[in-house]
Amino acid sequence: MRKMKSTIQRSFSNFFFEYETPRQVLVRNRRVAVVCRIIQLGVLSYIIGWVFMYEKGYQTVDTAISSVFTKMKGVSYTNISEVARIWDVADYVFPEQGDSSFVVMTNYISTVGQKQGTCPELPDGKNKCTSDADCDEGKYKRHMTGKCVTNTSTCEIFSWCPVEDDRRIPDPPILQTAENYTLFIKNSITFRQFNVVRSNLVESVDQNYIGRCLYHPKTDPLCPIFRLGDIVERSGFNFSDIARVGGAIGVLIDWDCDLDLSIRHCKPKYEFYGLYGTGKNDKVEKPSLGYNFRFAKYYVEDNEEKRTLMKVFGVRIGIIVHGRAGKFDIIPTFTAIGSGVGIFGVATVVCDLLLLYLLPKRDFYKSMKFKHTEVQDVEPTLPPSQKEKELPKVTYLSTADR
Amino acid sequence: MRKMKSTIQRSFSNFFFEYETPRQVLVRNRRVAVVCRIIQLGVLSYIIGWVFMYEKGYQTVDTAISSVFTKMKGVSYTNISEVARIWDVADYVFPEQGDSSFVVMTNYISTVGQKQGTCPELPDGKNKCTSDADCDEGKYKRHMTGKCVTNTSTCEIFSWCPVEDDRRIPDPPILQTAENYTLFIKNSITFRQFNVVRSNLVESVDQNYIGRCLYHPKTDPLCPIFRLGDIVERSGFNFSDIARVGGAIGVLIDWDCDLDLSIRHCKPKYEFYGLYGTGKNDKVEKPSLGYNFRFAKYYVEDNEEKRTLMKVFGVRIGIIVHGRAGKFDIIPTFTAIGSGVGIFGVATVVCDLLLLYLLPKRDFYKSMKFKHTEVQDVEPTLPPSQKEKELPKVTYLSTADR
Amino acid sequence: MRKMKSTIQRSFSNFFFEYETPRQVLVRNRRVAVVCRIIQLGVLSYIIGWVFMYEKGYQTVDTAISSVFTKMKGVSYTNISEVARIWDVADYVFPEQGDSSFVVMTNYISTVGQKQGTCPELPDGKNKCTSDADCDEGKYKRHMTGKCVTNTSTCEIFSWCPVEDDRRIPDPPILQTAENYTLFIKNSITFRQFNVVRSNLVESVDQNYIGRCLYHPKTDPLCPIFRLGDIVERSGFNFSDIARVGGAIGVLIDWDCDLDLSIRHCKPKYEFYGLYGTGKNDKVEKPSLGYNFRFAKYYVEDNEEKRTLMKVFGVRIGIIVHGRAGKFDIIPTFTAIGSGVGIFGVATVVCDLLLLYLLPKRDFYKSMKFKHTEVQDVEPTLPPSQKEKELPKVTYLSTADR
Repeated sequence: MRKMKSTIQRSFSNFFFEYETPRQVLVRNRRVAVVCRIIQLGVLSYIIGWVFMYEKGYQTVDTAISSVFTKMKGVSYTNISEVARIWDVADYVFPEQGDSSFVVMTNYISTVGQKQGTCPELPDGKNKCTSDADCDEGKYKRHMTGKCVTNTSTCEIFSWCPVEDDRRIPDPPILQTAENYTLFIKNSITFRQFNVVRSNLVESVDQNYIGRCLYHPKTDPLCPIFRLGDIVERSGFNFSDIARVGGAIGVLIDWDCDLDLSIRHCKPKYEFYGLYGTGKNDKVEKPSLGYNFRFAKYYVEDNEEKRTLMKVFGVRIGIIVHGRAGKFDIIPTFTAIGSGVGIFGVATVVCDLLLLYLLPKRDFYKSMKFKHTEVQDVEPTLPPSQKEKELPKVTYLSTADR
Repeated sequence: MRKMKSTIQRSFSNFFFEYETPRQVLVRNRRVAVVCRIIQLGVLSYIIGWVFMYEKGYQTVDTAISSVFTKMKGVSYTNISEVARIWDVADYVFPEQGDSSFVVMTNYISTVGQKQGTCPELPDGKNKCTSDADCDEGKYKRHMTGKCVTNTSTCEIFSWCPVEDDRRIPDPPILQTAENYTLFIKNSITFRQFNVVRSNLVESVDQNYIGRCLYHPKTDPLCPIFRLGDIVERSGFNFSDIARVGGAIGVLIDWDCDLDLSIRHCKPKYEFYGLYGTGKNDKVEKPSLGYNFRFAKYYVEDNEEKRTLMKVFGVRIGIIVHGRAGKFDIIPTFTAIGSGVGIFGVATVVCDLLLLYLLPKRDFYKSMKFKHTEVQDVEPTLPPSQKEKELPKVTYLSTADR
Repeated sequence: MRKMKSTIQRSFSNFFFEYETPRQVLVRNRRVAVVCRIIQLGVLSYIIGWVFMYEKGYQTVDTAISSVFTKMKGVSYTNISEVARIWDVADYVFPEQGDSSFVVMTNYISTVGQKQGTCPELPDGKNKCTSDADCDEGKYKRHMTGKCVTNTSTCEIFSWCPVEDDRRIPDPPILQTAENYTLFIKNSITFRQFNVVRSNLVESVDQNYIGRCLYHPKTDPLCPIFRLGDIVERSGFNFSDIARVGGAIGVLIDWDCDLDLSIRHCKPKYEFYGLYGTGKNDKVEKPSLGYNFRFAKYYVEDNEEKRTLMKVFGVRIGIIVHGRAGKFDIIPTFTAIGSGVGIFGVATVVCDLLLLYLLPKRDFYKSMKFKHTEVQDVEPTLPPSQKEKELPKVTYLSTADR
């Protein structure tokens, strides 16, 4: 009992008062040493220079949650068949409440005064009929009455009548002046992990500046007011083209913040690129160009429900926020150091391979590095001057070389 | 001075021309060696097979930022009380501009010609009154006038009148044929870090193919045109049910791209699942089934503002894009290797424990592995033939065993 | 041939039946040992306590993809110039279909019966003119006719007439009672990697509970029904202020799930904060307060298209879902262990520095730890009793000390 206690005590004191460190061989060989030092310096400079300085491996990273509000401004004047008309923001933005994704109407085909009834299909070449027999009732795409209208050579259908005639898209686009509209973007981001809230109206963007600025990548990179024509051109489109048939544009607000610095340096960058369509990122023409949608304004006239159907072509803008902030944190720092030390181990392995397998004196170095515990079989295939001659080692070692 | 300089020089040349490598004991013991090699092989195959091959630990990962545009197609014909009516896309999609989240109306309760005024509440059983005293003015939910209407036994309220009667949901759903509508999805994703832009209209999806294809998981997995009925059924709903009371469906576009391969292999996968409701993912019935919302079409008739209130039941589709791309990068590769080397160290520790604490000859191996720096206390509890007999070691070692 | 075969065989058997382990020096020095043990214990407790227990380094993490549906309830009664009016959900929510981002109208300026025509600009002080010469035609912001109207001293413009007069924002806000509206939020999240789907209507939130509960952070933290006034106040606004000029609020649904526990513990947390404006997160006043947008209700009267323009002030609510789930996984576990072992290596390096450069007996320890492979230059600067006296070592070592 006493014995055991003292054993435990001694183990315990051994553990606390003894410290083990690996025994090393110092190999005095210039070739190996220089190669190894270079490898080690390479690893070290990789860890410090790349992982720590460039990639900021000592930082923990959070992505932003964000909220976007948009507001268009501008007025267009059109004069179609002697009918003048003004278009303001309530007329040309969909939806109206300032979402992060919205459409600015730049062209349209309107069909005024549609009501439920029967009328012939559009004679666009695909719907020809010569007799009533060609007009099957109950087809899914259109609801046919079974009659072929001789006038247009198309089937009669039950539909909102008259049917929309979208064979010709107005050219030039009706609202070509949409180019001069301005877009105001408000963006708020939150880095939950760091408890940081930030708006794209940063310190230098005050009320006065907003009143007179217009975004320009060089001179006004922080102004949150954008000219629609600029957005379109910076994303690689031609305004006349996109205004005529429509198109989609992504506006990227990119936040890349180093929160180890002052929060004032956390600023947004704006980027513009074309989506789906003829934008700069698409080298080849993609199947589905253009952008349009239909909507209807309903009204009651003479106790009948009518509607004005609008086929709207426009610039669809999607605002995408990409926020990323880094801040010093102990965990990624230690993980990076730990991995670095691991890679140092790889460097040692490479040097050892060099030392033990490639150098002329490799057998000598082997004998320096390794100690054997057991008598080995007699191995006549190796020269007697080397490692395998170590027959009497065991007893020798067990007494002397500990 | 000269002495010091030469010392520094020597230290420097020592550092550069000397290389240290740990001294090892080669333990010739089959049991330990086999166990250790198996552990080491396990670690190695884990690192190579799992971390590198399967999890692609050599890749850095970026998530996509994406933009979605949707377009429904299809026409429905209804015949209610001898009134025929055609519903086209401008009538049944909310919102109209092709957002990533939208509703397809499949059923509705319309209350035509509402105007501001007083009328009795709906006699739905909950609002009964027997005398004016039951009708407190100023309740928050309804604006009561304080009168009990004997006809319906409900309080009179000031409201849009007549009040909506939504006690009975039309069954079968009015727009049951919505099943045959098709949905066209355009999705553009951007991997910022790799400067890659990609659309779901991949190489094999050309204009011609889009004109005739319909999505099918087996035969047409890349066709971006979906039948509404298929979407509903693939997400675990019955179309008649969801069309009657409404429901929400998630369409997931999943991009998992290995950018070390050709960009052509970066293709979307489409998945469908029910949200909130009776979908396949919900094992038990959840409290709040169905989906509906109200909207109003306003008009002026006889100088009075009126509205048609629609309680819309429909399929709410939310398109969710989940994009992830990996590409070879030196940092995660080195991190993975570094961690792997670290785990190798764990393997060595395990083997050492085996060697030094479990084997019968453990004391011998201990004496091989460790060298003591100081004379230890006499320890009579251990057999004299072993480690503790090493009294004269210090002097011996300091001269002979370096 | 036979010779070579046997060499390969032996190498192979050596590899499998020999195990190498580093030789260590056991340094019996209390100071070093205690310091080292403390460093090692620190590293160990950091790895176990912080990386594993606190940061759950053994878990792989997935972020949620989510879908949100919202529904407002409540009715407001207004009485403006003796005209009573009821506002229900179809009147005050934009858009109507229950998106994750929507606006609740709390105040408005309506301009009834606008039609295309000419009328003088608003005399708001900025647009004064004294003669027709002040009214240049073709300015971009307004479409001027070139006439100065003496009555108002402003230019005549072609526009929707009469022009909106938004000089005075109604105070108190017209729909002040919006405070009592309730918001019902349905949120479904999916952790793709773990194949987990979850809704904010968790187990304890059944139909009965939903019918009567109202969110309160202490008493009803899981109730998905929120009073608008509560949301506004919890995000740091005053309801009267925000109702008058509008504002934006973020509702954050935060899921932080440990999927190693029962799924029942995976519950949402709701948080509210002001965006852009006067919220609690903004210490200083930001340039752009308030929130408003314009929309128009179109109608046809006497064969003329007219519209009612609404400038809507309101509470813009954006629901943001932040989902994160962790689950045990072998890869991050091994990565954490590997990094930990790497940091252990750093601890050893620190201790060695202490041992070899700071202790009085450092040269003795050096001689214990290192073995030289070559005869060194005679170094008279060091005392002859130490390391440098090892001249005859090479031969000695190569025969005896392996």
